[in-house]
Amino acid sequence: MQITAAEIYRSMEMIRQNAPVVHNITNYVVMNNTANALLALGASPVMAHAAEEVEEMVNIASALVINIGTLSKSWIASMLKAAAQAGKKYIPIIIDPVGAGATTYRTKTARDLIGNNPPAVIRGNASEIMALSDDSTRTKGVDSVAASASAIIAARNLSEIYKCVVCVSGAVDYVVEGSKIIKVGNGHPLMTKVTGLGCTASALCGAFAAVEKSAFTATAGAMTVMGIAGEMAAEKAAGPGSLQMHFLDYLYTISEDDIKTRMKIEE
Amino acid sequence: MQITAAEIYRSMEMIRQNAPVVHNITNYVVMNNTANALLALGASPVMAHAAEEVEEMVNIASALVINIGTLSKSWIASMLKAAAQAGKKYIPIIIDPVGAGATTYRTKTARDLIGNNPPAVIRGNASEIMALSDDSTRTKGVDSVAASASAIIAARNLSEIYKCVVCVSGAVDYVVEGSKIIKVGNGHPLMTKVTGLGCTASALCGAFAAVEKSAFTATAGAMTVMGIAGEMAAEKAAGPGSLQMHFLDYLYTISEDDIKTRMKIEE
Amino acid sequence: MQITAAEIYRSMEMIRQNAPVVHNITNYVVMNNTANALLALGASPVMAHAAEEVEEMVNIASALVINIGTLSKSWIASMLKAAAQAGKKYIPIIIDPVGAGATTYRTKTARDLIGNNPPAVIRGNASEIMALSDDSTRTKGVDSVAASASAIIAARNLSEIYKCVVCVSGAVDYVVEGSKIIKVGNGHPLMTKVTGLGCTASALCGAFAAVEKSAFTATAGAMTVMGIAGEMAAEKAAGPGSLQMHFLDYLYTISEDDIKTRMKIEE
Repeated sequence: MQITAAEIYRSMEMIRQNAPVVHNITNYVVMNNTANALLALGASPVMAHAAEEVEEMVNIASALVINIGTLSKSWIASMLKAAAQAGKKYIPIIIDPVGAGATTYRTKTARDLIGNNPPAVIRGNASEIMALSDDSTRTKGVDSVAASASAIIAARNLSEIYKCVVCVSGAVDYVVEGSKIIKVGNGHPLMTKVTGLGCTASALCGAFAAVEKSAFTATAGAMTVMGIAGEMAAEKAAGPGSLQMHFLDYLYTISEDDIKTRMKIEE
Repeated sequence: MQITAAEIYRSMEMIRQNAPVVHNITNYVVMNNTANALLALGASPVMAHAAEEVEEMVNIASALVINIGTLSKSWIASMLKAAAQAGKKYIPIIIDPVGAGATTYRTKTARDLIGNNPPAVIRGNASEIMALSDDSTRTKGVDSVAASASAIIAARNLSEIYKCVVCVSGAVDYVVEGSKIIKVGNGHPLMTKVTGLGCTASALCGAFAAVEKSAFTATAGAMTVMGIAGEMAAEKAAGPGSLQMHFLDYLYTISEDDIKTRMKIEE
Repeated sequence: MQITAAEIYRSMEMIRQNAPVVHNITNYVVMNNTANALLALGASPVMAHAAEEVEEMVNIASALVINIGTLSKSWIASMLKAAAQAGKKYIPIIIDPVGAGATTYRTKTARDLIGNNPPAVIRGNASEIMALSDDSTRTKGVDSVAASASAIIAARNLSEIYKCVVCVSGAVDYVVEGSKIIKVGNGHPLMTKVTGLGCTASALCGAFAAVEKSAFTATAGAMTVMGIAGEMAAEKAAGPGSLQMHFLDYLYTISEDDIKTRMKIEE
């Protein structure tokens, strides 16, 4: 289950060459950043949420990323419709259960989405992942406590029930598929001071899943590239404003050598 | 009524240590910046507008910021619901009446919000504050004429009717509570060339009100920190693009000494 | 039909002096950038989409920019209402048919908008412009193939039917009005890696049309200034993140001399 820098970089090259369409139904807060991160990586972002067009848009996409950060009734209906269409067409679905556990509405929506059309990948922080498999957890807003043993257990449960990859992101990211697990140690604490980098990570999982058949390898690759671009940006940044800018620059310029010398994947 | 740098910095330290949840129901244009400014300051931003969840989200928040920048019917219903819940729970409400005076719909919505659940703070530019207490004013879009004597009179009226703090922001910011008034002279003209810095100011008022019982002191502190971060950013900026970036960096790094040497609060 | 740097710069000066209100009904992804670009240029952006207020907002605007990037039913109704009011008041309308051709819903909406109230300017990429005049084209997402001979033919058709200016943007921008055509060669490939710069171009067309009676001259001016600010930014940028920042800085500082020495307008 060794994942190599060469494998990760091959995915990046395929993204840069083929510019796969990644259809995002995401929250208002991060739409701009998400689109910019996907463009910087080399993908072709599309945002569309109208019930009247989501199925048609899914049809031209190579991945569907659904993020529940700013929900409302009509958006949920479109998310379910898009996911059903992606299921039919075998297009990988990435679910970002933003704020699951913070309100009943979010927890329920995330569970409905996952239950109706099993995704390829679920990516959330520890609280969110725990909330999805357990009613007793309460999230403090949309930020998160450190990934913990119980989050990993929750991830494994979810992975087994829905036959999907679950990524618990935090200071260390855990990528779980059934009994397989790897840790990605890249990243920087300053990244938590920029809104929506978690959402960006989910979008990058979509871009990688668009070109890499193994959702496990795709997720590990996306989280590694995300973390490396983030730490390179943090080294140059004077604060969260400049981190965000450098992050996009590095997503665009990151090389195989950057990945080779910096990647921290552990089994 | 002297407000000191030490007091302002104490609030900042409490925000940085406790990361209070600030619930924002705000406009599409500024959601990203608002969240980033709150994170840079040390708070935990949450954005949620669905009628189905706003009350539950208010319950975990320490302040509620309502901004009417991009209105629609269903959002107004959620704003009123969230405000009612905040009122019940004694959670401070900040109202930003963006564009009040520009259209009847905005003026009416802002008045309904304020009338139904008196806020802790109303923050707007001179035209907006005048529009709230007087039908004869017309705003030119959402920008503003300089704060004038009549805006201060309007602020005093509103403050007395609704028992709240009113901040008239502009080249000089006026913070008014009944007969008390202070002027904050920090800031820089280039800040008017970045969208949503007024909205950011309102959000920072929310973060300060989450940790400081006096809404007057909280508002003065927020406006001072806002202005200082803005002028430090402007000194380094080549234009509005870089101002926005440096502004977030400075919100993150601003020190007690920066406040002490730069604050311009006058009674 | 020679367009000079002096003419373009005169429009810029008028925008900087008069700060015309540009009313945008645009997509969630780019609202922030659009507002920032208009502010940097010197205009007064307003965003408002509620059916209850769009007509009143149109009345205080000098241009109306409608962008269909993230559609839904209620937004379309407001777009049509705003356009009708702008038509009545002789306020120039700019249409950005984002993603026309990608879904039936978008193509139909763009056509309805244009058909009901002929705009002053339609600005899109080659695929979008072709989709508006021809059902046989399919867009790959919202990005575009290079402007081609068939796009220019489509632009000419649209221009003749709707008596409006059509701009086909790409590596080279074509501005078409009936049998007149000019090419604007400014810009930089890195601009395609920043989301919403096409939408920004449409918004700038709105600002120029607010102060310049000839929609053809206004569009040529906006596209030239856009391209020059973009290429100046690209020369300084390390990637798409810093390009976006420098772009706003240059929109704010661009001088008559920058236009004179850099403009690449060809008949």
